[in-house]
Amino acid sequence: MSSAAKLLRHVVMFKFKDGTDKTLIDKCEQDFKALPSKINVIKDFEWGTDVSGEQRNKGFTHCFVVTFLSKEDLDNIYIPHPAHREFVEGSVKPIIDDILVIDYYTS
Amino acid sequence: MSSAAKLLRHVVMFKFKDGTDKTLIDKCEQDFKALPSKINVIKDFEWGTDVSGEQRNKGFTHCFVVTFLSKEDLDNIYIPHPAHREFVEGSVKPIIDDILVIDYYTS
Repeated sequence: MSSAAKLLRHVVMFKFKDGTDKTLIDKCEQDFKALPSKINVIKDFEWGTDVSGEQRNKGFTHCFVVTFLSKEDLDNIYIPHPAHREFVEGSVKPIIDDILVIDYYTS
Repeated sequence: MSSAAKLLRHVVMFKFKDGTDKTLIDKCEQDFKALPSKINVIKDFEWGTDVSGEQRNKGFTHCFVVTFLSKEDLDNIYIPHPAHREFVEGSVKPIIDDILVIDYYTS
């Protein structure tokens, strides 16, 4: 994650509805992973599932870190982008219980 | 954040007690930032404060991402390390309202 340039990290955590079919969670992961190839303001993309044993994840099982050069790219290009909208509406909303988002600039 | 090697990201979010003196929050940030110089299994360290406008941060204002080579380094060296323990007891616990932690492996 080290970088000389200041970057914006968009940290997104997902908690899926109890009993969600694993194939739908897999599809959600794959569709999120596909966004960087569709939205060129995404400069880095990383994700994983929780392996902590601290019981401090508050039910969130997935963490995605999407990196942009600026908040403008996030707010004005990524969020309203048709590929992002389609992902949110089609792959996330039907199965999501809760979402947590923090955006921060690297120093 | 790109990396060829598989790494463990320890994502920690802080929500401070209402009314916490800014000098104590500043000290907490500085003391966290000092850990990589004291604990050599920390391979990368990044943090920032929330700038999202989505109102999905659930009161968490600070996000720290601490990177390790393995979960063993996190669990067996970092967590019980005296410098970490001192930081948690002295700089975090007196002012913390809530903590969220997710650990994930990069793929």
